[in-house]
Amino acid sequence: MAAAGREFFTVRTVAEALRSFRPAHRTGVETVALADALRRVPAADLRCAEPLPAFDRSAVDGYAVQARDTHGASDAIPSFLRVIGEVRMGSPAPGPLAPATAIAIPTGGALPEGADAVVMVEHTQPAVEGFIEVVRAVAPGDGVVRAGEDAGAGEVVARAGRPLRAQEIALLAACGITEVSAHARPRVAIIATGDEIVAPQTATLGPGQVRDALSDSVAALVREAGGIPQPWGIVRDDPGLLREALAAVLDDQRDGAGALPGDVAGTLPGDGAGAPSGDGAGAPPGDSALPAPGAGQRTAGPADAVVVCAGSSVGARDGTATAIASVAELWCHGLAIKPGKPTLLADAGGVPIIGLPGNPRSALVVFRLIGMDLIRQVGGVTEPIIRPSVVRRLSRDLPSAAGRLDVVQVRLRGELAEPLFGPSALLSVMTAADGWLIVEEDANGLAAGEQVEVFLDG
Amino acid sequence: MAAAGREFFTVRTVAEALRSFRPAHRTGVETVALADALRRVPAADLRCAEPLPAFDRSAVDGYAVQARDTHGASDAIPSFLRVIGEVRMGSPAPGPLAPATAIAIPTGGALPEGADAVVMVEHTQPAVEGFIEVVRAVAPGDGVVRAGEDAGAGEVVARAGRPLRAQEIALLAACGITEVSAHARPRVAIIATGDEIVAPQTATLGPGQVRDALSDSVAALVREAGGIPQPWGIVRDDPGLLREALAAVLDDQRDGAGALPGDVAGTLPGDGAGAPSGDGAGAPPGDSALPAPGAGQRTAGPADAVVVCAGSSVGARDGTATAIASVAELWCHGLAIKPGKPTLLADAGGVPIIGLPGNPRSALVVFRLIGMDLIRQVGGVTEPIIRPSVVRRLSRDLPSAAGRLDVVQVRLRGELAEPLFGPSALLSVMTAADGWLIVEEDANGLAAGEQVEVFLDG
Repeated sequence: MAAAGREFFTVRTVAEALRSFRPAHRTGVETVALADALRRVPAADLRCAEPLPAFDRSAVDGYAVQARDTHGASDAIPSFLRVIGEVRMGSPAPGPLAPATAIAIPTGGALPEGADAVVMVEHTQPAVEGFIEVVRAVAPGDGVVRAGEDAGAGEVVARAGRPLRAQEIALLAACGITEVSAHARPRVAIIATGDEIVAPQTATLGPGQVRDALSDSVAALVREAGGIPQPWGIVRDDPGLLREALAAVLDDQRDGAGALPGDVAGTLPGDGAGAPSGDGAGAPPGDSALPAPGAGQRTAGPADAVVVCAGSSVGARDGTATAIASVAELWCHGLAIKPGKPTLLADAGGVPIIGLPGNPRSALVVFRLIGMDLIRQVGGVTEPIIRPSVVRRLSRDLPSAAGRLDVVQVRLRGELAEPLFGPSALLSVMTAADGWLIVEEDANGLAAGEQVEVFLDG
Repeated sequence: MAAAGREFFTVRTVAEALRSFRPAHRTGVETVALADALRRVPAADLRCAEPLPAFDRSAVDGYAVQARDTHGASDAIPSFLRVIGEVRMGSPAPGPLAPATAIAIPTGGALPEGADAVVMVEHTQPAVEGFIEVVRAVAPGDGVVRAGEDAGAGEVVARAGRPLRAQEIALLAACGITEVSAHARPRVAIIATGDEIVAPQTATLGPGQVRDALSDSVAALVREAGGIPQPWGIVRDDPGLLREALAAVLDDQRDGAGALPGDVAGTLPGDGAGAPSGDGAGAPPGDSALPAPGAGQRTAGPADAVVVCAGSSVGARDGTATAIASVAELWCHGLAIKPGKPTLLADAGGVPIIGLPGNPRSALVVFRLIGMDLIRQVGGVTEPIIRPSVVRRLSRDLPSAAGRLDVVQVRLRGELAEPLFGPSALLSVMTAADGWLIVEEDANGLAAGEQVEVFLDG
């Protein structure tokens, strides 16, 4: 479907990708128990049905009073009030409170009828039996949390599109909202490719073989972004096999709202077929994908997003682009970023496909910067993510070419951020790092001593 | 066990608590599949058995050569090399490479025997059939990632006590380490207390009643800290009932390595009993804890840490302190922090007990600042946690009393951090906030325009 000859050479900036690559698919809505709702994304605003708190409450330990009875009170001239009772937690308040009387009340207790303020116990002293002296005046409302002050009836207590934090869960519980309509967690297919790639379980490597470093680590980042990883296994460097795998993970989608355009379906061999089958093009039968995709993966439903871990050579990357272009609209065939230039982004009828570079380190950089945002977006997040970071000073000059965004791993040493270098194939640079910094497209580098924002890998 | 009259008035600083409150219990060790190991804490250093990569690999697309054959090569005077083959991914390299020859090699391909460098394809041009011209000299090692360069045999690839990130998972997968000995996730009992507290599911509140806002929200933060929340339910304001609940959640512990001191066991009524039973002291039978702790919670094992959400009144807090002091050593009965002063910390034979203030907002502030670190520590984390934050400028002056740490919720507005105020009973201040800042104990406040670190609620 894509005019490959042209689009294969489209390189975009990271800023463009974050701003403009916005495939339309969103996950459906399901009901989630509040206890399991941390980081889940409400599909609609959640409103408190009744005022919170439901009644006027004391904010302090003290005495419920009529404020006017305390006017002018001081240590020298205290107000004398008769204590006519005590509020017990979780019980109706005694009362009504008559002028010149007080009712003892604990923090959180229900304000008795007739009272309009609470005097802190520290501002009272015992007087003759059954009386207190108030030594400080209070105004109406002092020491009281009014009914509805935390949330009024009908007020929004959690916004659609913003992942729930602990405080929203607390407020929803207080409102009696114990189930939430939330976006389903996006199912993210992860397809590894490469003739040299074998499963991590492989005890002894054959000549030229390397273990799949990305399926499990990208799966971890998918979970961090709120998604459900669906590892597909390893597909050999063959555009036909990859196209079959892509068709299979996108499959059911074509019958749904986020359907692939009709003109694509016709181009897919084995349309509607399940797991990819070795088609004989260089692949021994049963060897095309390791581990073989089983029924468990198929029944999990169509993917809401797809990650392809591309091969590292130019040939493998071109094959990946060809396969992706056969099922989706290629949005870019490269990003102006280092490391991570050979990144593909494509839109399969609304479902994002992210083609990651072959080097595991580059792949993780790009997936953190671009992929996780896409997963969140598919999962209904509409508020911008604030990327956690710390601010440090750069320990040395950091050169960079303008027109390209550089991601540099750094180690934190007290107040300093110390850049780490090494070939992009080395994962150990990343495991030695505490986080990373960005040298923006328009910068020619950063100077030693400059304040930098270091993003944390969490 | 505690000398209540003295210790009940111990107030400590947050810095002291973070530095010095260090109960000794740690969770046991279990085997975790690498695919599930994100944020899990290795119990011992993990080492790569064999060099990674296992063989010299090309870092670029190009031609494997003997570097000396390219000496002096330039556009004007290129080196001519005969192409004698091609490296295929995942296959043994052809070779050996003789002088004045080259072998085509993709990124990641195995370096042929006899070659010591790779010339990038961009620095070559086709010559007569079967030959290339090399137009730039390479030195030995150029374009090559050496065997063992990412990790040598026996090298530590993930450290004990540091939660695994995506990059460690990638490196472990590359090393073929697909199972990790990790600390078990800490089981954290959460006990709500208060005569006024009812379950969030309660549709209609009785007079003076409020729903439990903390059990689910503290549970969410326990999960964020890597723990497994075990909500116990709601215990009435009665030190005897709370003591029974504490004894029950700590119970099995007394037979284990982190056992309670023997002198404590004798003070526990119903020693060895399972779920707390209403002992009649003001509690209707079966009403002492809602929902009733069932077999499911008992069989989950003893708690590795305990959170008590205390009542908000002075009386309820004193009762909580009494109950905790009967099973543990009280470390402090208050923290110099606002909000959150009525925080209890205690050590039950190595198991931390965290008594949170009655106000849900104060409770979440304290649990984020102190509690989550304790959970991580019990779960084997030994590296300091870097708290995610962003740097902004303060929108207005922020007064504060010296000698006390203030936590202030803020909203982010572009480059500004805008403090939010309101009674500590209000959760809505927290849901409106993007994060919070700290005014340290020794500060008298912060000035408008000052740069502040805003910690994110994630």
